[in-house]
Amino acid sequence: MSKQITISLDAMGGDAGPDMVIPGAAIALRRRPELRFLLHGDEARLTALLEPHPQLAAAARIVHSDVVVRMDDKPSQALRAGRWKSSMWKAIESVKTGEATVCVSAGNTGALMAMAKFCLRTMAGIERPAIAAIWPTLTGETIVLDVGATIGADAQQLVDFSVMGAAMARAVLHVDRPTVGLLNVGVEEVKGNEEVKMAGRLLKEADIPELSYAGFVEGDDIGRGKVHVVVTEGFAGNIALKTAEGTARQFAQYLREGMNRSWLNKIGFAIARSAFDRLKEKMDPRKVNGGVFLGLNGVIIKSHGGADPEGFASAIALAYDMAAADLTNRIVEGLAHYHRVGVVSAVTGDTRGDQ
Amino acid sequence: MSKQITISLDAMGGDAGPDMVIPGAAIALRRRPELRFLLHGDEARLTALLEPHPQLAAAARIVHSDVVVRMDDKPSQALRAGRWKSSMWKAIESVKTGEATVCVSAGNTGALMAMAKFCLRTMAGIERPAIAAIWPTLTGETIVLDVGATIGADAQQLVDFSVMGAAMARAVLHVDRPTVGLLNVGVEEVKGNEEVKMAGRLLKEADIPELSYAGFVEGDDIGRGKVHVVVTEGFAGNIALKTAEGTARQFAQYLREGMNRSWLNKIGFAIARSAFDRLKEKMDPRKVNGGVFLGLNGVIIKSHGGADPEGFASAIALAYDMAAADLTNRIVEGLAHYHRVGVVSAVTGDTRGDQ
Repeated sequence: MSKQITISLDAMGGDAGPDMVIPGAAIALRRRPELRFLLHGDEARLTALLEPHPQLAAAARIVHSDVVVRMDDKPSQALRAGRWKSSMWKAIESVKTGEATVCVSAGNTGALMAMAKFCLRTMAGIERPAIAAIWPTLTGETIVLDVGATIGADAQQLVDFSVMGAAMARAVLHVDRPTVGLLNVGVEEVKGNEEVKMAGRLLKEADIPELSYAGFVEGDDIGRGKVHVVVTEGFAGNIALKTAEGTARQFAQYLREGMNRSWLNKIGFAIARSAFDRLKEKMDPRKVNGGVFLGLNGVIIKSHGGADPEGFASAIALAYDMAAADLTNRIVEGLAHYHRVGVVSAVTGDTRGDQ
Repeated sequence: MSKQITISLDAMGGDAGPDMVIPGAAIALRRRPELRFLLHGDEARLTALLEPHPQLAAAARIVHSDVVVRMDDKPSQALRAGRWKSSMWKAIESVKTGEATVCVSAGNTGALMAMAKFCLRTMAGIERPAIAAIWPTLTGETIVLDVGATIGADAQQLVDFSVMGAAMARAVLHVDRPTVGLLNVGVEEVKGNEEVKMAGRLLKEADIPELSYAGFVEGDDIGRGKVHVVVTEGFAGNIALKTAEGTARQFAQYLREGMNRSWLNKIGFAIARSAFDRLKEKMDPRKVNGGVFLGLNGVIIKSHGGADPEGFASAIALAYDMAAADLTNRIVEGLAHYHRVGVVSAVTGDTRGDQ
């Protein structure tokens, strides 16, 4: 029997707010009946929306809050107006108090990250958090981080990201010793900027038991699924992620145009329908919805603001996986391990710590 | 009547070397009969390969060279072994001496850039060169630079890239005042790293007449065709380009798998064939083959090493456009203009130079 897992939801977050969150939670609960929810938001509105979902109502507790962080609030505005009292803040706080294991919000990313940092603080030994994305590949899924939390990460931070990403890979991809690659402009050791080259040396030297360092990877190796975890600084990672989204959209658009060009094409596409349904499923952004904030004392999942209930249910499923795998503690263990054995000796130039 | 344009070819470059270069040049010549070629490489071998192409033989002059830069030579090796005497060096040198207007090589990128910098030198006022790629978009084509020549470009270099990219856009896209966007992780002015933010201020302030600065763009805006020119530092640009290539390959692979899953699918795809042919054409990497080295005293086109004759012909066609538009001089003019009117005043904090 699976144990109960409580997830706190920012029920007011997202473009459609509770009208999307509540049906999304209902879908997630049908798939994982052991889920329990804390719903943070306007009590009257949430109570009304729970009406058609008696099972969810039984598995959820509403925690009232008056204040809503808007999708276009700047992080500083959101902190000023929403700290201590907004649905977003309270959803995060439930993780801090231990009432919930993971928090999910479809609210605005900047505000969510600012509040999460303020409320949960970074883990001991971690300077800056990262956002990890799950990237569909030809061979399965790859975890890519950081996709935008930390602009200009240095070598040490890239090593931290490697440890955090590997812990997440064990939780999501169920591999014992995930392969980790550093995103670079070439695979030779001389390629890239100083931070990436230094991080490569540190990872080699540290020989961290929780991961297998696979060297540099290039942009096209992500979709190829060459490694389980791709580590990069947030500027390049964000650009890679959005560029891939743009390219997928472009391809889909060309296909749609082709389909509508003639009757013959329409008929052909109708006959080959099952192939397209599969393609659509493979590229469906809803299936991999959810950026994971790593490096804080608690895991926060950011759903797309424009997610529909199905997409939000995916983000909740991801939150479930993170909680079931006890991700935060796994990361803490991984960090403790490599701080003990590896990196310090690498930095000081000794050949290897005692293992 | 079009004027004759002479292009120098590194006839030994590329995975297949002259066996690909000669038929590629023959294709390009059929489309642009006013082309003339300097073919640098092994005379005996090239003479034999020209046998079945009498028209090309008449439009080309062979310049013998013994030394070939290998595809896996390191730039330093290539310089040591191939300077003054390799087919690659001599092809570049033809641009320096004025015998040719543009040079095309499918040889290895690092070696080609190293030799091009050594032989041609950077333009006055330009510190570092850039490689520009032509990116197919939903609305046409966008020029993206730098895709890997200059890792860690600073704000001033990003402005230089903007001027160079705009000159190229006028030549290739035939727009009078191309729109230029800076690649960033968000469109708000506070987003991004210091270099990008500073470059944005400089471009705004300088108000360069040859281009229209459109602010920040994100990764998915490239494929959308939001601006004519996307400017970025080489690390992020290279990762964006390769990530897009990887995503397109992924999509194509899913489609192929779908097509072969059942007889019904095969029949459907056969009926809708014209739509797929169009899609293939849209995404055909051969059609946009050619990275353009900008910022040197002469234009060099780098073809994919694995290009087939059709792809190499595209790179030659691109070289033709660059030559016909007198790209190098246009860049020199653009740079002179903005050095005079804009950026200096922006840097010193004055509101505007005299225009």
